This record gives sequence, C-alpha cells and structure tokens, in this order.
Amino acid sequence: MGEFELLARVRERLPAPGPRVRLGMGDDAAITVPGGATATSVDAIVEGVHFSREHCDAGTIGRKALAVALSDLAAMGAEPGEAYVVLGVPPGMGEEECMELIDGATALAAETGTTLAGGDVTRAPALTVAVTVVGHAADPERFVTRAGARPGEALVLTGEVGGAAAGLLLLERPELAAAVTPAIAERLRARQVAPRPQLGAGRALAAAGATAMIDLSDGIGGDALRLAEESGAGLRIDTSALPIADGVIEVAAAAGRNPLQLATSGGEDYELLAAVPPERLDEAAAAVGAAGAALARVGETMADSGVEIKLPDGRRLEAGGFDQLS
Amino acid sequence: MGEFELLARVRERLPAPGPRVRLGMGDDAAITVPGGATATSVDAIVEGVHFSREHCDAGTIGRKALAVALSDLAAMGAEPGEAYVVLGVPPGMGEEECMELIDGATALAAETGTTLAGGDVTRAPALTVAVTVVGHAADPERFVTRAGARPGEALVLTGEVGGAAAGLLLLERPELAAAVTPAIAERLRARQVAPRPQLGAGRALAAAGATAMIDLSDGIGGDALRLAEESGAGLRIDTSALPIADGVIEVAAAAGRNPLQLATSGGEDYELLAAVPPERLDEAAAAVGAAGAALARVGETMADSGVEIKLPDGRRLEAGGFDQLS
Repeated sequence: MGEFELLARVRERLPAPGPRVRLGMGDDAAITVPGGATATSVDAIVEGVHFSREHCDAGTIGRKALAVALSDLAAMGAEPGEAYVVLGVPPGMGEEECMELIDGATALAAETGTTLAGGDVTRAPALTVAVTVVGHAADPERFVTRAGARPGEALVLTGEVGGAAAGLLLLERPELAAAVTPAIAERLRARQVAPRPQLGAGRALAAAGATAMIDLSDGIGGDALRLAEESGAGLRIDTSALPIADGVIEVAAAAGRNPLQLATSGGEDYELLAAVPPERLDEAAAAVGAAGAALARVGETMADSGVEIKLPDGRRLEAGGFDQLS
Repeated sequence: MGEFELLARVRERLPAPGPRVRLGMGDDAAITVPGGATATSVDAIVEGVHFSREHCDAGTIGRKALAVALSDLAAMGAEPGEAYVVLGVPPGMGEEECMELIDGATALAAETGTTLAGGDVTRAPALTVAVTVVGHAADPERFVTRAGARPGEALVLTGEVGGAAAGLLLLERPELAAAVTPAIAERLRARQVAPRPQLGAGRALAAAGATAMIDLSDGIGGDALRLAEESGAGLRIDTSALPIADGVIEVAAAAGRNPLQLATSGGEDYELLAAVPPERLDEAAAAVGAAGAALARVGETMADSGVEIKLPDGRRLEAGGFDQLS
C-alpha cells in the first residue's frame, strides 16, 4: 500500500469541508480561516495500550480515536472544526482496513460537523491513531478551562459513569454478560468502544456560565483532582449523587469488583465534570437537557484545596482513594 | 514514568509562548487567537521506519520530528506558530530520554519562533513522534499551495540536494566516510539527522510571487511530479543545473551508486521547489539570499502535463525515471 494512493482514496470520499476550511487534505498543509479563537488538542491511541483489535473492528477504532480527541474540545465548550489524523499501519493491515478506519472517523466527523482536513500515513509496529482536533469560539474567553472554579459553586456531571469500565470487563470476560440483559450488555460495551464526545453539552455548559470543566478520561477521582488543582479550589463529591450506568452494579458484582470503583476510577466515560455558579444551575440543566444530555449535581467547590469524597456509608476519602476501594 | 508527571516537567521548562497563544500545554486544549489564516500539517516519524536510535540520540530525534513538520509550513510560505507533539514511548525508554527528546524539539521551536503548545504521551511498541504544526499568514491567499504553477514560469530550488541521502549512506556504512574529508562527512550526516526547515526562504518565495511550492521530502523526481499534477502543468528539470551537495559524488562513487539518483530520489533534503514568474526571478533570488539560503533555477514549467528530466548526457527521462538510474 502506498501512502499517496491511500491518501488519494481518503481525499476522494471525504464530505465537503466546513466553512472555515479553504484547502483540505492533499497539499503540504491545510488552509483555514478560523475567524476567532481556537482550541487545539492532540490524542493518540495505540493497539495493545488503549484498545485490542480483537474487540474492535477498524471502523470502531477510527471512530473512537476521533471521539476521544473531540471530547477534549467538548470540555472546552468549543465548536468542533477540523481534525488531522496520523495513521500508523502495522504489518498485515491492508488498504481496505485502513479505509474502514478512516470511514469510522469520517462518520463521526460528519455527525459532529468536523472536517477531516489533513493526515499522514506511516508504517508502524502496532496500529496507532493520533488525532489533532481544532475547535472554535468567537473569542478566547468563551472557552472553559480547568482553572476557573471558585468556592461555593455547584459541581455537575453530564450523563452516567461506570459504563465504559463495565463494558471493558464484558469484552475481556464475556461470561460476565449473564449478569445483565443482552440490551444492557450491548449498551455497556458500546460505552467502551464507541464513546460519544459531549460536544453539545459542553457548549451548553459554557454558555450557561460554567467556570471550569474537564472531560472524564481517567475517572472522576483523578480528573476532579486535576480540575481542583488547576482552579486552586477544593471539591467535595457525594458519591450517592453519582449517576451510575444501568448494569454496572450487576457486572461489578459478577466480577467481584466494587461498582463505585468502576464508576469513579474505571475511566473512559468521557462525560463532562464542570463547576457552575449555583444561581445558574437551573439554566445549565435546561441547556444541557436541550442538547440531549442529563445533568446531575454531584458535589460542590470549597475553599480548601484537594478533593473530598463522601461515600454512601458516610466514610470520607481523599482523591485517589477510589483506587483503594475493594 | 507517569504521563502527567512527564507533561508537568515538559510544561515547566518550555519557553514563553508566542503572541497568539493564550493558554499553552496543560489543559484539555491549548487556546490561540490566530488573527488571520492558518496552515496546518501533521507528520509522524517512527523508529525502524524513519530513523534508527543507533544513529540518533533522543534530542536529535525530537528535533528532526519538528523539523520535518515545519518543512511543510515552509513550503506554504507560512510563519510558524504552534506545535503539538504526540510521543509514543517504547519499553526501556526512561523519563530522562523523553526529556532530551522534548528538549531537542524545544530548541528548534525556540530557533524558529514556534510555541510547543500541547502534547500527549503514551506507551508504544516503538518510539513514535507525531507533530502537528500550525503556521500563520494575514490572509489565506498569502499561502503558496502546490496548485498554482502556470506554463512559462521558472522552476527554482533552494539549497543543495543529495546530502541527506549521502548522509544516510555514511551512517549505515561508516567506512564510506574515507571518500570525503571529516568535515564534509559530518555535514552530510547532519543533512540526514538534523534537517533545517527552510522557513525564511519559504516566506521569501511567497512574498516574491511564487505560484506553487513543495518541500522535497521524497526527492525532486517524485515531489516535482506532485507539484505538476496539482498545478495541472508540466515541468522540465535540467539535472545539470541541480546544486548537488559537496561530497555526494564521492560518497556515491564509493558506494557504487549513481550520484544523480541520490540527489533526485534519495529524499529528505527538505529544500523547497517552487515556480516563480520569470520577471520576478531576480527578486526571488535576492529575497531568498536575504533569508540566508541560495536559490538555483533548475528548470521551467510547460503547457504539457508531466515532468521531463534532462540528463547531463542529453537523455530525457520521465518523472519517476530517477529511480531507474543505475
């Protein structure tokens, strides 16, 4: 497979570029006219580290690589714009499988209004997909960083947690699926292999005055700590308020795992955690609802630094403590 | 080595960000205010495919990864702005070596006015460095694509060719160095491991009215064909006018290779090939000279399609024919 032939095929089947793109894939560089402020993030996934080709077809891998990158734009409240994809192709992976991978990414790009504007293809010892995404806003102040939370704000979470970790358990140990209905098992596996970047909810939270926001890639325990540190504020999370995905408790029980540990440090849920001034909480919930997602109040920001976690039995843990839950 | 610890160390030692960067490494995304048009390109290099860790220390690899990416911005005539680096770290590569790699990239970033604005670190089976670079211009028409050459223009080349291919021969077969002086051998090896993106020359050519431009990553034979195809024009290249780097002829002779083949299809010289209207040729040469590079007229554009190559002995080859030179 020649790099140029593959890129030419990719170029042929891409949808029309977005309004900011003046020149897409195929030249030395893509040309865009951002017309405001940009948010740019890079994310790479590697076979054997982030995914197994046993569990995912190429299209699913391409889609997930873009989804994970776009999740960072969601966490900024950005409008998605362009994506640039580096594909490292291992021995034995043919051109058709590469095209399936690109088609998976392209499908999510079309759903989210993202233009696949550039790329590079190289040989590699393991399948590698590195994605750079560029999102937009009218001015830089519209973006929500991790650093703006102030004491006395509400801590909110989109969607549900634990599903991606339970889905991974189901992929690795298919016999655990007997603990839930087939529909729930399928939904949990989909949370793992086909995460949805919360772009609409992210923009809604930004518009509703979110002061700090982060996407949950590693689990709420670790990611909340990063938000607290960057904001120089403390966070209190009430685990009884965490919306846990259907089936997580059953799968955890069948696997002999603590469901709260899956829900808080399993990672890969790609939901958004944000701080919102309390007087704008109703507005934020309505805006996130209009974007098709749910919003739960899971805690609050405090003057002290660090993250305090309230367990259902009344015990309190420090951040990172989720990992020690048995 | 933890990803967060490494990124935190990287973040600490980065120089101050450029004027367009409002938020650099460390959040979900970097925030910039481009204020005009952007050119964006991605390039990845992989151990065992693009480089050998036997021939290069980590700093050299980091520098080369950024150089190769910036060369695409040079070919657009862009002002370099931001770079985003994905680092795939193989087993056995420690944190210090990662920092050396980043330091190598950072040094070139500082030399070229580029801000290292974001990154991702992951485990990988082989050392992988994927770099996204963003360059700038006041408006999109200032960028020079591959597509604008018209018949009757001069075809010009910055610098010298063949050095990178001869340098690779010297790295792979050190005994060939006896064919040249130590200083020349060192210069040829540096052409291979430490290419210099021709950013100043690229901007000078853009300002002097270059109608199409490409950087020589694969060799003038293949890259000229891409420029011709995108422009819908023909090119004639006179090989006797090609500036061949000192020592290439001697190293080629010692290796039993045709020097013209090294100079035209060896690749990795990262010089710029451009079409310039003949009445602006003197202006272009002066501007490139002021940017510290040489400019040679190596051919012209024609109405016919394709690339015609005139050899010193009067024979004529079609593009791609360089590969068959013995």
